[in-house]
Amino acid sequence: MSLDPKRTVAELKELRALTGDENGAQRVAWTDTWLKARAWFASKLKGLPVEHHMDAAGNSWVTLPGASAKSLLIGGHLDSVPNGGWLDGSLNELAGLEVLRRINSEFAGRPPVTVRLVDWADEEGARFGRSLFGSSAFAGTHSITADRVRTDRDGVKLEDAVRRCGVEMDKIPDAAQEQKNAAAYLELHIEQGPVLERMNLALGVVLGTKGVERHTITFLGQEAHSGSTPMNARRDALAAAAQLALEIRTIAKKHEDAVCTIGSLKTFPGIVTAVVGRCEVTLDQRDLDARVLAQMYREAQECSQRFATEEKCTVSWSRLWNIEPVPFHPHLLDLCEQAVKEVSGASHRMPSGPLHDAAEVSRAGIPTVMVFVQSLNGISHNKIEDTKEEHLEMSVVALDRLATKTTDWIVQQH
Amino acid sequence: MSLDPKRTVAELKELRALTGDENGAQRVAWTDTWLKARAWFASKLKGLPVEHHMDAAGNSWVTLPGASAKSLLIGGHLDSVPNGGWLDGSLNELAGLEVLRRINSEFAGRPPVTVRLVDWADEEGARFGRSLFGSSAFAGTHSITADRVRTDRDGVKLEDAVRRCGVEMDKIPDAAQEQKNAAAYLELHIEQGPVLERMNLALGVVLGTKGVERHTITFLGQEAHSGSTPMNARRDALAAAAQLALEIRTIAKKHEDAVCTIGSLKTFPGIVTAVVGRCEVTLDQRDLDARVLAQMYREAQECSQRFATEEKCTVSWSRLWNIEPVPFHPHLLDLCEQAVKEVSGASHRMPSGPLHDAAEVSRAGIPTVMVFVQSLNGISHNKIEDTKEEHLEMSVVALDRLATKTTDWIVQQH
Repeated sequence: MSLDPKRTVAELKELRALTGDENGAQRVAWTDTWLKARAWFASKLKGLPVEHHMDAAGNSWVTLPGASAKSLLIGGHLDSVPNGGWLDGSLNELAGLEVLRRINSEFAGRPPVTVRLVDWADEEGARFGRSLFGSSAFAGTHSITADRVRTDRDGVKLEDAVRRCGVEMDKIPDAAQEQKNAAAYLELHIEQGPVLERMNLALGVVLGTKGVERHTITFLGQEAHSGSTPMNARRDALAAAAQLALEIRTIAKKHEDAVCTIGSLKTFPGIVTAVVGRCEVTLDQRDLDARVLAQMYREAQECSQRFATEEKCTVSWSRLWNIEPVPFHPHLLDLCEQAVKEVSGASHRMPSGPLHDAAEVSRAGIPTVMVFVQSLNGISHNKIEDTKEEHLEMSVVALDRLATKTTDWIVQQH
Repeated sequence: MSLDPKRTVAELKELRALTGDENGAQRVAWTDTWLKARAWFASKLKGLPVEHHMDAAGNSWVTLPGASAKSLLIGGHLDSVPNGGWLDGSLNELAGLEVLRRINSEFAGRPPVTVRLVDWADEEGARFGRSLFGSSAFAGTHSITADRVRTDRDGVKLEDAVRRCGVEMDKIPDAAQEQKNAAAYLELHIEQGPVLERMNLALGVVLGTKGVERHTITFLGQEAHSGSTPMNARRDALAAAAQLALEIRTIAKKHEDAVCTIGSLKTFPGIVTAVVGRCEVTLDQRDLDARVLAQMYREAQECSQRFATEEKCTVSWSRLWNIEPVPFHPHLLDLCEQAVKEVSGASHRMPSGPLHDAAEVSRAGIPTVMVFVQSLNGISHNKIEDTKEEHLEMSVVALDRLATKTTDWIVQQH
C-alpha cells in the first residue's frame, strides 16, 4: 500500500465532522470532545503492528518497532482552540499516520529504524493558559509547581481536569522517559501566516521558532480636563504610548523577519473629557536571532524612556513572559529543503513566529525540523482557517520524503 | 453692612462640613444631600427683604426688588459631582449672596435695579448625564423628550427623581418665564485649569465658552497573529489611531487656546498576541471661534482618512455631541476687565473650555459675562480642588465691583 495523501484529507474532514460544529473545531484538551478525537484516532490504528500508550503527561505514543531501536519521531496534536480550525495540529498528526502506514507497508512491518507517532497533549493551552503542556513535560522544561494551581474559567483545577484523563500531576516528569532512543523529530504544520501565500509557494522549511519578549509597559502622566488644560500644559500618557506604538515598527523593520506588536492599549480614566493620565500597552517582540531580539528589546526600552521624558511622563516595564529562540537542526534543514523542492519545485526557509511542540523537542537536544504548508489568508485559530487540498496533499508527500531522508540519516549516524 | 468676603469663605467651609465627607462634596442634584444644601442656603436668607421660589425646572430664585424691574442676575449651582470639590458652583452662589447682602445694605432694601440670585438645578448632570439641566430649561434649549427616558445607574428614572424634588417634566419649559426683565447675567467660577496659576494671576475675564465637537472614530484593519504576520503584511488599526493621536496635537497648536483630546482609545481583540484589527478612539475638540473649530474638525477628518489609507485600514466617524461656541457680551467683558484690574492689578482674557450655566443664559440673548478665579494645580471635580483663600476673597470683591458696574450700565440702557 503506497502513500495516499487524499486519504489524509478525507480523514481530516471525517475528524472535523466528528468534533466540530458550526463555530469550528471544539477539540479543547482534557474535554470529552478531545477524548472522542483521540478514540477516533486510535480506531485508525487497527491492523497496524504498533504499540500504543499514553505517557505520564497525557501524550499519546504509537510505536512501530524497527530493526534499530533508534527512533524517528513524527508529531502533531489533536487538540484545538475553542472555535478553532480543521488543520492546526490535526494535519500534522494525520499526515504522520499516513507516513507510518506507508513505512509499515514498504518494509512489511519492520522498518530500518523505529518510527513513533506522538499526539502531544494540550499544545494550545486554550483552557488553562499553559501551552505546549505535553511536549514541555517530554522535554523536561515543565514546571509542575507553577501549573498545579491553574484553573479554567469555571474554576475547575488543572490538576482535576488532567486526572480525569488519566494524568497525575506528580508523575508528569516521567514523560521525559519517552526521549529514550529518539534520534530525530519531524513536524508538519500550517504556516498560520501569509508569507508562503504571498510568495505563491505551497511549502516552506522552518528555520526554528522565534524567541519572544513579552512585556506590559505603563506610561504615567496627569489626568486633566480636556476643556481647560492647554495643549502645552499636558502630561498626556497616550501621546507617549502612541509614539511607542509607531516606533516599534521602525525597530522591527531593521531586521528581516523580526516582528514587534502592540496588541493591547488601555487608557485611564478613558473618558472623552479627560486627558489620559495612565496608558498601559502590551509589547510582543519576536525574532529567531537572540541578539536581534535583545537589541529590539533594548531599543524599545530606550525609546519608551525618551518618549516618556518628552511628554513629561514616566514609564515602567513589567515582563509578562519570554522564551529564547529555538533554531532547528542544520542537517535536517537541508534534508527538509530537498524534500520540499522535490515535491513543489521551490522552497523558502523561514522562521516560525508561533511556537510549536517542535521547539520543546528541540530544546531536549533532539535533532528537529518542521515543514510549513501554505495557509489561505494567513488565518488560523478560526473556523475559516483553510489550505488548498492540493497543497495539503503536497505537504503529506513532503513529510513522507523527509521521513525517508531522515531515516537514512539516522541509519548513517548510528 | 459692607461686603465681607471672609464670610463667603466661612460659609463655603460651613457648607462643606454639612454636605461633604472624607471623599469630597456629595451635593449631587436631586439627592437628599443636595436638598439639605438648598435648605441651608435658604436659612441664610433670613432677614433679607427677598422673595424666594423654585421655578418649573427646579432652579431656585432669590429676588431683591429694585426701583426698576430690569434685573441683574447672578448665578451659581449648589450641586456637585460625587466626590467633588468645595468650590465648583458653590463659590459662585455664596459670592452672589454676599453681593446681594451688600447691595441690600447699601440701598436700604431698594436698589436701582432688581437683583436676582439663581441657584441652577443640576448643572453637573452627574447622576443622569444631562448637564446644564436648569439653565437650559431657562434658556428654552432643553428637550424634554430626550431627557424623560434617562435613568441613573440604579435604574431610577430622571422623571421620578425630579418629581420627588417638586419638578414635573411637562412643566419644565415654564422655567423660561424667568427670563422676563433679565438685563444682564454675571457668574463667578473657579478656572478648573492651570492657566491663571501659570501666569501668576488671581483673576481672569472669561471671553465665552468654547464650542465642542465630540466624536467616536473607528479604524478597521485586520486582526492577525503577532508572531506569524510580517510587519509589511499588517493592517494595524492601532498604527492608524496612534498617528491620529499625535496629529491632533499639531492641529490644535495652530490656534491659541484651541484644544484637541483623545481621552479614550480601545483596541480589539486587545490581546498581546494579535495585531489590532479594530481601534476605537474618542476625539474632543474645542475652541471659542466657530471657524477654528470647523477647521480643526475638518483637518482631523482628513488626516484620519490619510492615516487609514496609509495603514490599509478604513475609518468611520460618529458624532457623540457638539455645541457651538458662546462668546460673552463685549461691553460686559470690558466692565469685567475693569473690575478684575481694580481688584488684582492685572487681568487676562481667556476662553472657558468647560461649559457653564452662563453659556445657556447667553444663548437666551441675555448679556452675560464670567469671572474666573485661579485654581490650584488646575484640578477640579475632585476633593483636592482648591483655591487660595486670598484669591477667593479677591474674587468676591471682583464680582461685587462687576455687579456695581453692570447695574450702572443697566440703568443707562433703560
